[in-house]
Amino acid sequence: MLIPRSIKHCRTCGGAVRYEIPPDDNRDRAVCTLCHLVHYENPLNVVGTVPAWGDQVLLCRRNIEPRYGLWTLPAGFMELGESTADGAIRETVEEAGAHIELEGLFTVLNVVRVGQLHLYYRARLLDTEFAPGPETIEAGLFREAEIPWSDLAFRTVRATLERYFEDRRKGSFGIHCADIG
Amino acid sequence: MLIPRSIKHCRTCGGAVRYEIPPDDNRDRAVCTLCHLVHYENPLNVVGTVPAWGDQVLLCRRNIEPRYGLWTLPAGFMELGESTADGAIRETVEEAGAHIELEGLFTVLNVVRVGQLHLYYRARLLDTEFAPGPETIEAGLFREAEIPWSDLAFRTVRATLERYFEDRRKGSFGIHCADIG
Repeated sequence: MLIPRSIKHCRTCGGAVRYEIPPDDNRDRAVCTLCHLVHYENPLNVVGTVPAWGDQVLLCRRNIEPRYGLWTLPAGFMELGESTADGAIRETVEEAGAHIELEGLFTVLNVVRVGQLHLYYRARLLDTEFAPGPETIEAGLFREAEIPWSDLAFRTVRATLERYFEDRRKGSFGIHCADIG
Repeated sequence: MLIPRSIKHCRTCGGAVRYEIPPDDNRDRAVCTLCHLVHYENPLNVVGTVPAWGDQVLLCRRNIEPRYGLWTLPAGFMELGESTADGAIRETVEEAGAHIELEGLFTVLNVVRVGQLHLYYRARLLDTEFAPGPETIEAGLFREAEIPWSDLAFRTVRATLERYFEDRRKGSFGIHCADIG
């Protein structure tokens, strides 16, 4: 993630930047002292899926930092040139090698503290053949009672899984928005 | 918006960057030729509201480029340190000086071509006293038949307004996801 106020040089001319409030603006930006380009720092989107096989969901054990060794839903940073749905599918393929059919948007979770918005889609697994990528130690299917709740990598993963199993019991899935502290 | 491949210098050391695929990655990134920092370029979020007063909706006429003079819902780039809801309220205050109570998330619109995700919330106007900011020529209330459909600034505004009035006729509001070409 881009740490706010971490810009030291202009991306266009390489000149030193100074943090100041530009004219017609109301917050500090990195402004180039040579060419006066204003650099904006904005939140990033993380997109992922809840891949389901009957009453089981697919989790991946992380082979990378942060949270090495902990379990996560397949997810990662949204890239230019793709939609949130495209990105969610791509991350599911990259991290789990899973074959899915995307269903509806499921959670929209603000994580203000780290400048991120997490969007998870429901997905239907088409088979149980997985091929974990280099970012994943292992991928596996878990019923609600088998979820490693105390070894989950991120609070947005917990929030998404809790809402998923709750809606599944109800027999209807909504779209859930929340702020994650 | 950040134009992809527009980075020429490293934000940390000011060195020249080269676009190349870093180890353990699968797409071109701006990599510093001196300190090897990898610079990521990601989609930006635009957040806004559909402020309603009975059967009328608040629109703002843009006093800035792009789309100077055309009509928009209050919206703008999400900032670090705020949630999507915080940003939607802030933009409504900045652009229209409107007093609102936020209601549910309403549209989630991917605009892949420009690397943006637009999120609009429904909002209830608490009064009809507006105080347009410097980015707005005028703010006004419009019934469905009065909306200046051919003078709207953005396709996401049109998509949001169409779905808003459709749901209003139905008597129930959903959350709508779409890709806007």
